[in-house]
Amino acid sequence: MPPPLLVSFTAGDAGAWTIDQLTPVRGETLALAARLDVLEGSGSAPAPDAVWQLRGTTSNLRYTLRKEASALAAVQEGLGRARATCAALIPIRKNDAWWALAQDERRAILEEQSRHVALGMDYLPAVARRLHHCRDIGGPFDFLTWFECAPQDASRFDDLVGALRETAEWNYVVREVDIRLSRAA
Amino acid sequence: MPPPLLVSFTAGDAGAWTIDQLTPVRGETLALAARLDVLEGSGSAPAPDAVWQLRGTTSNLRYTLRKEASALAAVQEGLGRARATCAALIPIRKNDAWWALAQDERRAILEEQSRHVALGMDYLPAVARRLHHCRDIGGPFDFLTWFECAPQDASRFDDLVGALRETAEWNYVVREVDIRLSRAA
Repeated sequence: MPPPLLVSFTAGDAGAWTIDQLTPVRGETLALAARLDVLEGSGSAPAPDAVWQLRGTTSNLRYTLRKEASALAAVQEGLGRARATCAALIPIRKNDAWWALAQDERRAILEEQSRHVALGMDYLPAVARRLHHCRDIGGPFDFLTWFECAPQDASRFDDLVGALRETAEWNYVVREVDIRLSRAA
Repeated sequence: MPPPLLVSFTAGDAGAWTIDQLTPVRGETLALAARLDVLEGSGSAPAPDAVWQLRGTTSNLRYTLRKEASALAAVQEGLGRARATCAALIPIRKNDAWWALAQDERRAILEEQSRHVALGMDYLPAVARRLHHCRDIGGPFDFLTWFECAPQDASRFDDLVGALRETAEWNYVVREVDIRLSRAA
């Protein structure tokens, strides 16, 4: 478990990732831009000239149990695989009712009702994933999830996010934008 | 559950709170200063001239179950009571082993082994408490806990923090400073 890492996602004219598609799923969308720059740590400075910039930090596990974390760790792969030239950035915001729930209530909705962890497991190791938290540092979203996979697995994003959007957990999502990206191999 | 609130604790020559005592409990201490300024939200700007400044955000519940949250809510009182002229600020940092644990492992240590929530309950409503998270926003500590009570209850701080320091949870604490404060009635 690495220490928290601040990551910025900056939309504009520069960056390694080409934005291929930007789809508003729920609530206000984000502006279109040509490219996305993903920067980590001290490189993730505010970019006031960007079309938009979202920032979040990696963190410790919030809901995942040991048996689940061990099962995930046994099969998941990291970001940056050479063949993983497709990506998705999915910023979401949940409503006040979600955040007012106690820990056991949120866990029950997330996993026992919605199988969020188990669903993600079905797409490993094809889809690599990193979650960034931003509710506590302000900004318009609560979470920024970044996914990477090879082109032949890109349609699996649709299956995964489609399944998640049908869950009880997603009743608490008030804003979601689905951004698909690619980079040169 | 209010939205996350950024709070700064700024030590120097100004502020409503007089620092009466500053005790290193574990690890590196903090420098002595005469006063502490506690500012919330947009007022909590960086203060480069301060002796030191710690910043953290309130957040959602991380471990507390619904039955515990409801029991706490039924008896706890908020900050800012006129009679609560004594305070304690206790910054702590936990080690990497703590943060590498899964959610169920941390919960089991915190409550089933250490009775952290139950211990705090014993001091309600005399001691009001607000927890601020700072691990994800950087800085030298993971948590800043602020306590307020009336002078006749001030010795109860010692009982509460003394009991917590005997727990299994505290085996993971690598840095702790205990700061006691007072303000004019």
